[in-house]
Amino acid sequence: MCGIIGIHSKQDISKDLYYGLFSLQHRGQESCGIATMNEKIKQYKGMGLVSDVFNANTLNELQGNIGIGHVRYSTAGGSNEFNSQPLVGSFKKGKIALAHNGNLINKSILKERLEDEGLIFHTTIDSEVILYLIARYYKKNLIEAIKKAMKFIKGAYSLVIMTEDKELIAVRDPNGFRPLLLGKRDDEFIVSSENVSIDILGGDFVRDIAPGEILHIKDGKETSYFYDEKEEKSTCIFEHIYFSRNDATIDCQNVYEFRVKSGEILAKEFPCDADIVIPVPDSGWAGAIGYSNYSKIPLKEGLVKNRYVGRTFIKPTQREREIGVRLKLNPLKEVVEGKRVVLIDDSIVRGTTSKKLIDSLRKAGAKEVHLRITSPPVKYSCYFGIDTPRRRNLIASNNSIDEIKSVIKADSLAFLSIDGLKQSSIKDFKFCKACFDGNYPVDPVIL
Amino acid sequence: MCGIIGIHSKQDISKDLYYGLFSLQHRGQESCGIATMNEKIKQYKGMGLVSDVFNANTLNELQGNIGIGHVRYSTAGGSNEFNSQPLVGSFKKGKIALAHNGNLINKSILKERLEDEGLIFHTTIDSEVILYLIARYYKKNLIEAIKKAMKFIKGAYSLVIMTEDKELIAVRDPNGFRPLLLGKRDDEFIVSSENVSIDILGGDFVRDIAPGEILHIKDGKETSYFYDEKEEKSTCIFEHIYFSRNDATIDCQNVYEFRVKSGEILAKEFPCDADIVIPVPDSGWAGAIGYSNYSKIPLKEGLVKNRYVGRTFIKPTQREREIGVRLKLNPLKEVVEGKRVVLIDDSIVRGTTSKKLIDSLRKAGAKEVHLRITSPPVKYSCYFGIDTPRRRNLIASNNSIDEIKSVIKADSLAFLSIDGLKQSSIKDFKFCKACFDGNYPVDPVIL
Amino acid sequence: MCGIIGIHSKQDISKDLYYGLFSLQHRGQESCGIATMNEKIKQYKGMGLVSDVFNANTLNELQGNIGIGHVRYSTAGGSNEFNSQPLVGSFKKGKIALAHNGNLINKSILKERLEDEGLIFHTTIDSEVILYLIARYYKKNLIEAIKKAMKFIKGAYSLVIMTEDKELIAVRDPNGFRPLLLGKRDDEFIVSSENVSIDILGGDFVRDIAPGEILHIKDGKETSYFYDEKEEKSTCIFEHIYFSRNDATIDCQNVYEFRVKSGEILAKEFPCDADIVIPVPDSGWAGAIGYSNYSKIPLKEGLVKNRYVGRTFIKPTQREREIGVRLKLNPLKEVVEGKRVVLIDDSIVRGTTSKKLIDSLRKAGAKEVHLRITSPPVKYSCYFGIDTPRRRNLIASNNSIDEIKSVIKADSLAFLSIDGLKQSSIKDFKFCKACFDGNYPVDPVIL
Amino acid sequence: MCGIIGIHSKQDISKDLYYGLFSLQHRGQESCGIATMNEKIKQYKGMGLVSDVFNANTLNELQGNIGIGHVRYSTAGGSNEFNSQPLVGSFKKGKIALAHNGNLINKSILKERLEDEGLIFHTTIDSEVILYLIARYYKKNLIEAIKKAMKFIKGAYSLVIMTEDKELIAVRDPNGFRPLLLGKRDDEFIVSSENVSIDILGGDFVRDIAPGEILHIKDGKETSYFYDEKEEKSTCIFEHIYFSRNDATIDCQNVYEFRVKSGEILAKEFPCDADIVIPVPDSGWAGAIGYSNYSKIPLKEGLVKNRYVGRTFIKPTQREREIGVRLKLNPLKEVVEGKRVVLIDDSIVRGTTSKKLIDSLRKAGAKEVHLRITSPPVKYSCYFGIDTPRRRNLIASNNSIDEIKSVIKADSLAFLSIDGLKQSSIKDFKFCKACFDGNYPVDPVIL
Repeated sequence: MCGIIGIHSKQDISKDLYYGLFSLQHRGQESCGIATMNEKIKQYKGMGLVSDVFNANTLNELQGNIGIGHVRYSTAGGSNEFNSQPLVGSFKKGKIALAHNGNLINKSILKERLEDEGLIFHTTIDSEVILYLIARYYKKNLIEAIKKAMKFIKGAYSLVIMTEDKELIAVRDPNGFRPLLLGKRDDEFIVSSENVSIDILGGDFVRDIAPGEILHIKDGKETSYFYDEKEEKSTCIFEHIYFSRNDATIDCQNVYEFRVKSGEILAKEFPCDADIVIPVPDSGWAGAIGYSNYSKIPLKEGLVKNRYVGRTFIKPTQREREIGVRLKLNPLKEVVEGKRVVLIDDSIVRGTTSKKLIDSLRKAGAKEVHLRITSPPVKYSCYFGIDTPRRRNLIASNNSIDEIKSVIKADSLAFLSIDGLKQSSIKDFKFCKACFDGNYPVDPVIL
Repeated sequence: MCGIIGIHSKQDISKDLYYGLFSLQHRGQESCGIATMNEKIKQYKGMGLVSDVFNANTLNELQGNIGIGHVRYSTAGGSNEFNSQPLVGSFKKGKIALAHNGNLINKSILKERLEDEGLIFHTTIDSEVILYLIARYYKKNLIEAIKKAMKFIKGAYSLVIMTEDKELIAVRDPNGFRPLLLGKRDDEFIVSSENVSIDILGGDFVRDIAPGEILHIKDGKETSYFYDEKEEKSTCIFEHIYFSRNDATIDCQNVYEFRVKSGEILAKEFPCDADIVIPVPDSGWAGAIGYSNYSKIPLKEGLVKNRYVGRTFIKPTQREREIGVRLKLNPLKEVVEGKRVVLIDDSIVRGTTSKKLIDSLRKAGAKEVHLRITSPPVKYSCYFGIDTPRRRNLIASNNSIDEIKSVIKADSLAFLSIDGLKQSSIKDFKFCKACFDGNYPVDPVIL
Repeated sequence: MCGIIGIHSKQDISKDLYYGLFSLQHRGQESCGIATMNEKIKQYKGMGLVSDVFNANTLNELQGNIGIGHVRYSTAGGSNEFNSQPLVGSFKKGKIALAHNGNLINKSILKERLEDEGLIFHTTIDSEVILYLIARYYKKNLIEAIKKAMKFIKGAYSLVIMTEDKELIAVRDPNGFRPLLLGKRDDEFIVSSENVSIDILGGDFVRDIAPGEILHIKDGKETSYFYDEKEEKSTCIFEHIYFSRNDATIDCQNVYEFRVKSGEILAKEFPCDADIVIPVPDSGWAGAIGYSNYSKIPLKEGLVKNRYVGRTFIKPTQREREIGVRLKLNPLKEVVEGKRVVLIDDSIVRGTTSKKLIDSLRKAGAKEVHLRITSPPVKYSCYFGIDTPRRRNLIASNNSIDEIKSVIKADSLAFLSIDGLKQSSIKDFKFCKACFDGNYPVDPVIL
Repeated sequence: MCGIIGIHSKQDISKDLYYGLFSLQHRGQESCGIATMNEKIKQYKGMGLVSDVFNANTLNELQGNIGIGHVRYSTAGGSNEFNSQPLVGSFKKGKIALAHNGNLINKSILKERLEDEGLIFHTTIDSEVILYLIARYYKKNLIEAIKKAMKFIKGAYSLVIMTEDKELIAVRDPNGFRPLLLGKRDDEFIVSSENVSIDILGGDFVRDIAPGEILHIKDGKETSYFYDEKEEKSTCIFEHIYFSRNDATIDCQNVYEFRVKSGEILAKEFPCDADIVIPVPDSGWAGAIGYSNYSKIPLKEGLVKNRYVGRTFIKPTQREREIGVRLKLNPLKEVVEGKRVVLIDDSIVRGTTSKKLIDSLRKAGAKEVHLRITSPPVKYSCYFGIDTPRRRNLIASNNSIDEIKSVIKADSLAFLSIDGLKQSSIKDFKFCKACFDGNYPVDPVIL
C-alpha cells in the first residue's frame, strides 16, 4: 500500500505536501518523498517516516508551487531507497515526476517487452514501467500518451504526475481499485489518497476522481479526460475494513460508519453470551463499538497498546517472544479477570496474532475468549496492492472456521458474512471482494 | 515526570531493561538511559526515545545481571544530555548508579550548602543532590547513609540505586508521591514505576513499595528498612487522572477503573442533553466510556488522532497553526455533523487545546459542543513532579468556570467535583490533591 | 575526475573493493559506491568518503565474487546522490552495472536523440547515456553492443562493466585519455584507475589497458577486443602533473619520476638566486626535490599543512578568510624568516591560492618569494574530465606571465616550458596537452 | 596527549576557538569540546574530530567572549564521552570550566582520599581531581585555591580555567612538562598548547607560560602568580621528536629545526653507504632532510601515504593485514627498486611498524634497507602524558639494538645518541628524557 498527494497552486506548497504526507503516513512507513517545481523539478526522498526523512533544511530546498508526494509501504519491489517515490526522470518534454499507489498485474511481461527493445530499468517497482510507457507514447500530447499507456497496464493504479509544463495530472485506473480524491482550497487544487489531507490543509472535498478518469490541472483550470474502455467500478474493500483512517470517505462511503455498522451486523449474525466487548486496538475500536451497541454487552478497554513500539524496535529472541506480544498489547487484568470476553478484530490473515492475544488474555484471567471478526475469511491473495501473503499462508485458505478456532484456541469464532459486508455499506457501493470469494475484477492469470 | 526500573537477577537482563523502558516510554520521551553491572557498572544514555537511543550494539555492551533504567520528561533542570539518567558516580565504596522519579522542593538550598563545602555539580537536576548526600553520609552502611540523606531531602522521590556491591536498592519518599512497585519473575526482582513493566517481562506483581520504605536486594534476598519519620500517604492523583497507563494499578487503585468511574460520576453530577459522547483521544477514552455508560448517550469516535506526529515534527508557522491542530486530531465529519456533542477530556490546564478542538468540531458541523472534564479545575502548581505551569498560566486559577466556558467557546462546561474524584477510587486510597485545593502535603514555601 | 576499480574472482572480494576504493580516494571525495554479485547484482552507494559511506554491515551485505567500485569527484552532472556510481540497471540480458571515469563531449546531443525516441533519464551524468546505448544496441552479443555504443560516444571514458552473466568488462576510450590498468593476483583479475589498488591488494601489475581496447573477463579467461577506428594515443598529462598519486605509473611513465624530473628541468630553464626551496604541500614536494637537486639550493619545509581541514569544515567569513588560508597551510616562520624563497607548485589555475600563500610567506618574514611552476600555463579548458574552470577564470588565459606575477605579488614567476614537459617524460609517451596549447585531440566544438 | 586553548576577548570568539581546535587536532582525535561564556558558561562536546562534532548550529549556540577548548587523545581514563573535556561544574563561586593537557601520577591516591570524604566522581580522568581540589580549597580567592591544589597534584598539567567571574586562568605545572604559550591579538589574549593556534588566528606570540606560573586574565589585564616550590624545568622532549607540529616553538626551541638537526647529527654519528634516503611519512620528513643534507645521499619519496585512512577504517583481518600496511604506506617501486635505502623514522616503540615497512620495501625491490632513528631507544614508560606502552611492550626495553635489528629484519639499525639529542637543541633547553634513561623528574613510584 502507498499514499499519494499532489498540489497545484500559485504559492509555495512544500510544507503543505509535508503535512499532507504526515496525514497519509498510516498508508506507508517504509519510505517517502516529495517532488516540487516552479520552473524546474527538484526532489528529496529517503527511507523511513516523514519525520525522519524531512527537516527544515530539506523542505526549504523544496520550495515550489506545484508538487507531488508519496509514502510507501513496500508491496511489489524490494525495500530499497532506489524504489522510493516520486520517480523523477527526464524525457523529451523535459522532466517528469510520478507517484503511484497500487499494483500492476502484468508488470513482468511489460518489463520484458520494454527490455527487449533496449530499455534499462533502474528500480524494481511497477511505477517505472508506467513512466516508460508514457514517455514512449508521447508525441506531442501527454494525455494521449497516458491513454495509450493505460491500454497496456492492467491492475490497480492511482497516479499523480507533474511535468515542467506546470501541469499536474491525476489518474485513477478504470476499476477504481485505489482511492483518489479531489479537493480545493481557494484556487488551489489538492489531489490525495484520502480526504484527511484535504481536511487538515483547510481545503474542501470536491469529489472522487472517477475510475478511468485523467484529470489535468494547469493555469488554474481543470479538464477531465476519460480512458475509452469502461470497467465496472470495484473499490478495494480492505480500504474500509482496515487500511484507511476512520475519517476517510471513499466513493461516498465513510470508513468509520462502515466499521461500526459491520460490528452491529456481526453482533446480529453471530451473537455471544459474554460479559464484556473488547477491541483489538486500534483497528478493532469502531467494530467493537458497533458490536457493543447492538448486543448491549458493555464495551471496555481490555488490551493497552504501546504507542512507541515501531520499526526500529529490537526484535525479541525466541525466548523473549512473549515479551514482544505483551509489550505491544498488554491485557488489562482488572478488566478481563474472571470475565467472558468478546474480542473484536477487523480481519485474520495468518492467525498468529489472534492466537497470541487470546493466550495473553487467558493468562490475565479471562474466563472465556470469543473472537468476532468484522470481515469474512480472507481466502485469496490480493494482486491489486494489499500486502496479503500467498494463499498457503492464509489461514482461512487452508482451514475451516472450526479448525481456525482450534488453532488459535478461541472459545468461539465467527466472521461477518459477505452479505453482512454488503449491508454495512451504502446501497450503490461497488467493491472488489476477491480476497473473500476469488472473483477478481481483472483476471490476474491470463495477463 | 519520569519512569524508573531496576532488575536484580543472576543472568543477563540488559534486554529486559530495554523492553522495560519501552513499557515506561509514556512517562518520558526526552532522554533515556540504562546502567548495568556484573562486576563493574557501565552505562549508556542519550536524548530521545528508547528506540532512538539504543540499538543491538549498545545493548550488547550493556550485558549484566543487575541494572537500572530511566526515561526522562524534563521537569526541573534543563533539557540537556548531561541531565539524562541514570547518574553514575564513583565514591568510596566504588561506583554507584541512581535513577530518580520526582521533584525535590528544597533542592536549591541543599545545593547551596553543598557548594559552600567545596562541592562541584555537573548537572542541574535534583538527583545529583541526592547522590551527593548519600555519598557524604556513607561511612560503612549504605542504608544508614540513605536514611540520613532522606532527613534532608524534601519532596517527591522514587529511587532505584545500584552499587558495585551487587545490590539493588529501591526507595520511595515518606509521602509516596510517585509510584514504585515490586515484582518477581522466578528468583529475579523487578522494581518499576508501573506494573506494566513487570507484566510484559512475564513477572508477577508482588506489592507497592511503601512510603518511606528502603528496599534492599542482594544475593537473592530482600530486606526492608524504613525511614524513621512517618508521613501521611499522599499518592499523586494525576497518575490516575492522566499520567499512568490504563493498565497501571498504584497503591491498589487501578487506573482504568478509576477513569471509567470518574466518567460515570461526572455524568451523574453533570448530565447533558446531547446526541453523542466523544472522547479526546487517547486520554479521554476511559472517561468517555464511563460517561456513555451512565448517560446512555452513545459513544462515538469523533476525533481521529494521527499516531505519527511527534517530537521531530516541524512546527507550523502562525499561518499554518490550524493545520497543526487538525493534523494531530481531525474531526470525523460524518460522525459530528449536525450533532449535539459531549466532549470528554481528562483535565484542562491552559485551555488552549480545548478551545481549538471545540472550534474544530464546530467547523466540522457539530451543532453544540458540551465539554465535560473528568477531574476538578487545576488551580495550583505542582511541586512534586507533575509539569504543570505556574499559576498565572493555569486558566482555572484565574477564571471562574463560566469565564473558562466563554474563553473556550463551549456550549456548556463542567468539571468533576473533588468529592466525585474521591468516590471514583477505592475507599482507603489517600491521594495528594494539592493541585485542586492548594493543601500541599509538604509545605513548598518554608523549605 | 573519478576513480574506478573492478575485480573478477572466485571468492568474496567485497572488502578488496573497499580497500581498493580507499586507495583511489584522492581521485574523488564526493561520493562512492560498490556493486557486487554472485548470482545477482547488489549495490550500495552514498555521498561522502569511503570511510563515511561503508561500514562492516554494508560490506557484509555486499559479499560477492565479482564487483566494481567508483569514487566520484563531480565533473559533469550536479552533486547529488542519484548521480553517484556504479549505475545499476536491468536490461534484457538481466542486470548490468557500470562505473565510468571521464567526460563525454557529445552527451547533450546524444541525450536529446535518445529522449526523442521515448527514453527517460534518471541522472544528469554522462554515464547513463553510455549505459542506454549499450542496452539499445545489445542483440545477443555484449561486445558488439559496446563497440556500437563507442561509435556514438566521443570524449574520455574508462569503464568497468559487470553483468549477471558473471563477466567483467573493462573499456578505455580510443584516445586513452584516462588511465586504466590490469593486474592479477593469482587467478584473480583486478582492473583499476591506478596501480596502487593492485599494489595494496597484493597483486601484480600486468599492463595498461590499451586505448580502444575492450577487455572481457569470464570464467578465469581474458579476451581482448578492439574498437575499429584508431586514434592517436593522448593520455591526460594532468594525471602526471597533479592528479595521480606519486606511486602511479600510467602508460609506462611513473608519476613521481616525472614530477622530480619536471622540477629539475624547471631549475635548468628558470634558475633562481635564492636561499631555500620550499614546496606547496603536498603536490609540490616531488617538484621541489627536483628543483633542489639541480639547483643545489637546500630543500626545506616552509609551509605546514593541516591534515584535518576537509569537506565538512565551516567556511570562514570574509573577515576570517586569512584564518582559513593559514589554517590549511601555516608558514614555518623559523624557516622562512629573512630568507629568499623559491616556492614550488605544480600548476596555477585561478591564481588565488598562490597570491594568498605568497602574502602569508611574506608576513612570516620571507625576504623574497620566487614562484616556480612545474607545468606550463593552463590557458584552455579541459573537456575530458579534469575540472578546470571556464577560460574566463583561467588566470593564464587572460594575462601574460608578467601580469600574473603582479597579481600574485611574486618577486619572480616562471613556468616549465611545453618542451620541458616533454623532456620530463619517457620518449614515446604521447599525451594530451590541450590545456596548454588548445590542440584538442577530439574536437569539442563540432560534435 | 591533548591540546588546549583559551581566549579572552570583548567580542564573540566561538569560531576562533573552533579554528584553534582545528590547528591542535594532531594532538588528539578522540574527542573535543568547547566551553564559552558571556554571563553564563555553556558548552558542547562529543566524540570524534572537530569537523564531526561541531557544525554551524552548535557553534552559533556557543557565542561568547571568553572560552576554552580541548582536543583529547585518551591517555589515562577510558574512551568515553563523559571523559571528554572541558569539564564544567558548578561550585560556590558559580560555574567553572577546565581543560587539561597532561597526566597526574598521584591521581589514584588523591581520588581515594576525596572519596573517603564523601565525594563522587563522574569521570575517570585526572582532570576531575584537579577540579575538585580547586573547589575544595576555594574560600574567597581562586588563585590561592589553585596554589593549594598544586601542592597536592603531582605530574604533568597544563590547564586553562574559566569562571563566571569573566576570568581566564592558564596554569603550567612546576616542571613545565607540557607546553603552554601566550599570544595576543590586539587586546585579546590567546593561550594555547602550540603557537600554530596563535599564528592562524592572526595573533602574535608573546611568551611561553613559565613552569609553575598561574596566569590570570580579567578585564583586559594579565597578572602572573607563581607556585611556591620551584622545580627544574623539564619540557617533554617527545613534543619535539614526534608530537608537536613542525611549526611549533616550545620553550624557545623550534620543532622543525630540532628535527632537521637531529637528522644531521644522526648522519654524522651513524653514516651509511646507501643510494637514497627516504622518510617514513609524515613524521620522518624533517629528519630525512637533515640526514640527506649531511650525508649528501639524495632524498626521495619512497613510501606514499594514504591521507584518507583514519579512525573509522574497517580493520583488515589477519589475512588482510598486509593490505592494511600497504594501504597506509605504499612503497614507490620505481624509486626503491634495486636501491640501497636509508629509511628515516622518528622513533621505535613496539617495532611492529618498522618490521612491516622494511618487509614492504624489500618486496618492492629495495636491495638493502638501513633504518636510522632520529631519537634514542625508548626504554622506559612515560607517566607524564605520552601514551607509550608498558615496559614489557617497549622493544628497546627488552632487546639490544642488534636484537631489534634481527627482529625487524633491517640490514643495519642505529639510533641517535642522547648526547646527539642534546646537540640538536639550543643550549639552555632543559628537557625530560626519562623515556630514554629512566631519570624521572618527579618520582612516579613513591607518590
